Amino acid sequence: MAQSQSSAQRRPQTKVLALSGGVGGAKLALGLARTLPADDLHVLVNTADDFQHLGLHISPDIDTLLYTLSDQANAMQGWGLAGETFHALDALGRLGGDTWFRLGDKDLATHLLRSSALAQGLTLSEVTRTLVQRMGIQSHVHPMSDDAVRTIVHTGTGALPFQHYFVREQCGPAVAGFEFEGIKRARPNAEVLGLLAAPGVACIVICPSNPYVSIDPILQVPGLWHALRDCAAPVLLVSPIVAGMAIKGPAAKMMAELGVPVTAAAVAEHYCSRYPGLVDYFLIDETDGKLAADIARLPLEVAVTSTVMKTLQDKQALAQFVLKLAQER
Amino acid sequence: MAQSQSSAQRRPQTKVLALSGGVGGAKLALGLARTLPADDLHVLVNTADDFQHLGLHISPDIDTLLYTLSDQANAMQGWGLAGETFHALDALGRLGGDTWFRLGDKDLATHLLRSSALAQGLTLSEVTRTLVQRMGIQSHVHPMSDDAVRTIVHTGTGALPFQHYFVREQCGPAVAGFEFEGIKRARPNAEVLGLLAAPGVACIVICPSNPYVSIDPILQVPGLWHALRDCAAPVLLVSPIVAGMAIKGPAAKMMAELGVPVTAAAVAEHYCSRYPGLVDYFLIDETDGKLAADIARLPLEVAVTSTVMKTLQDKQALAQFVLKLAQER
Repeated sequence: MAQSQSSAQRRPQTKVLALSGGVGGAKLALGLARTLPADDLHVLVNTADDFQHLGLHISPDIDTLLYTLSDQANAMQGWGLAGETFHALDALGRLGGDTWFRLGDKDLATHLLRSSALAQGLTLSEVTRTLVQRMGIQSHVHPMSDDAVRTIVHTGTGALPFQHYFVREQCGPAVAGFEFEGIKRARPNAEVLGLLAAPGVACIVICPSNPYVSIDPILQVPGLWHALRDCAAPVLLVSPIVAGMAIKGPAAKMMAELGVPVTAAAVAEHYCSRYPGLVDYFLIDETDGKLAADIARLPLEVAVTSTVMKTLQDKQALAQFVLKLAQER
Repeated sequence: MAQSQSSAQRRPQTKVLALSGGVGGAKLALGLARTLPADDLHVLVNTADDFQHLGLHISPDIDTLLYTLSDQANAMQGWGLAGETFHALDALGRLGGDTWFRLGDKDLATHLLRSSALAQGLTLSEVTRTLVQRMGIQSHVHPMSDDAVRTIVHTGTGALPFQHYFVREQCGPAVAGFEFEGIKRARPNAEVLGLLAAPGVACIVICPSNPYVSIDPILQVPGLWHALRDCAAPVLLVSPIVAGMAIKGPAAKMMAELGVPVTAAAVAEHYCSRYPGLVDYFLIDETDGKLAADIARLPLEVAVTSTVMKTLQDKQALAQFVLKLAQER
């Protein structure tokens, strides 16, 4: 019908695609979820941290998103579920099993459900969709790929699978570089590719996640960063480095070990050199305001706001700032 | 050395091999474990109840033995661990997962350890040995086979995998027969075969377990019942039916549904007709003393004692009776 067609054509671009790793990214994703109309937020999540452990398929970043968006996350701890118990893990320890990865009892349910569904032939996207629905989450959560990609951290003392570096070794060894095993054969998330090809996307937000081990794997899935760049919607990157520190995680430590200045400016350079033409706006924290002029020499626009998200209000305020910036473009 | 050789030749037969299913069998196994010197008890356990659930390999009868022999069993409940919690299962239920099999949090540790070890290529015997050691159990616990055997219960309403019949349907459907999938290809436990071929076995005890779904699968592993029969040690069978009832489980209900009289005598006939020459002594409870003359027409000797095991003392008393009977032979 002409009427409907005309409405469809006039339909504003309302969808937001956020790229996220774990905790830092999930904070902004939650802010976006609480700001946008239900159904408009799509989060594309790093799965290069995924690993097999005790026969289970564990997707740490997806779970952080799921738990955060369903208000189940343990905010104090920064990982896992609120009100969690560790009876299974304690029993496993008494049996001499591996306990370095802190699997909670409730958390185990997620891994059991995912692992058995994958064993039955479902894809990671399908299982994630089921978990999203069953946790009552309104937003969409997409793994970057249904194919296995595994981050290997090269360190002074050898190569380590990511979770061994991150959890077991608590990021101790100095990093020398990163490798994403399987990435060349990985196919990008089909639903997100479809979203990017359609006209409904208002903006793309790169959340304040680790550039090296959270966002790089997503962008290096073949075809993905070009699809993001070629989409008409603006790409906004929120700096994960504030005042020379990472709010959470090893990003700052990694930059120092890689010989990169630990500054928001170096983050911007990382993206501009690796993914030219991708980022339109770079959001830095007001404590880094003095860097704005320096960063502005790069081919992107700089915006300054408060990017540190402690409260839900902070998260929503940053989300609103991001959305307004994209709209005003 | 002549001296040692002579000692070795004089070494008494001290080892006891017990055949067991779950709860009923584990009670007598515990009595035997507490009566015999450490290291002398070997328990050969039914694994036809094993199943894959939520991607885990679950061995209910082996676990009942492990938990009972390590004093961790929930005696009140008759299954699982004492002081157990169900946080993972509750979370799984909230996610829409299957919760009919009541997996406790501590119990999950056993299944995770076993499943991941099997996935790494270890055999069920090897994994069981590890669990025995780590639970501080002095006795030996052997799966009847490392190969998969799965009991199918034929009922009036169709065929059911054993745990679906036993746990999910709570033994509701009337049974018409049993099938042990995979049993023709199953190889018997090698260590137990070795034990039976060596001269050290004092007696073989068939614990008061379900004849149809606990002991039949063990005896029908190719080669096993012949090896038991051909071993010089006497075979003593403890009736699982007392005063027309099963102390635990569906044995009596199954007998009635199969059109078999629910008596200890019918149990004896079952063994004599299926496994001629296997059983030397049949132990019935004193409340069934009146059946002794009737059963004595069968080619086995009948002994009467108290076979109902409520306390640890009961278990040890029955164990002592069994061992004395075998010794006096």
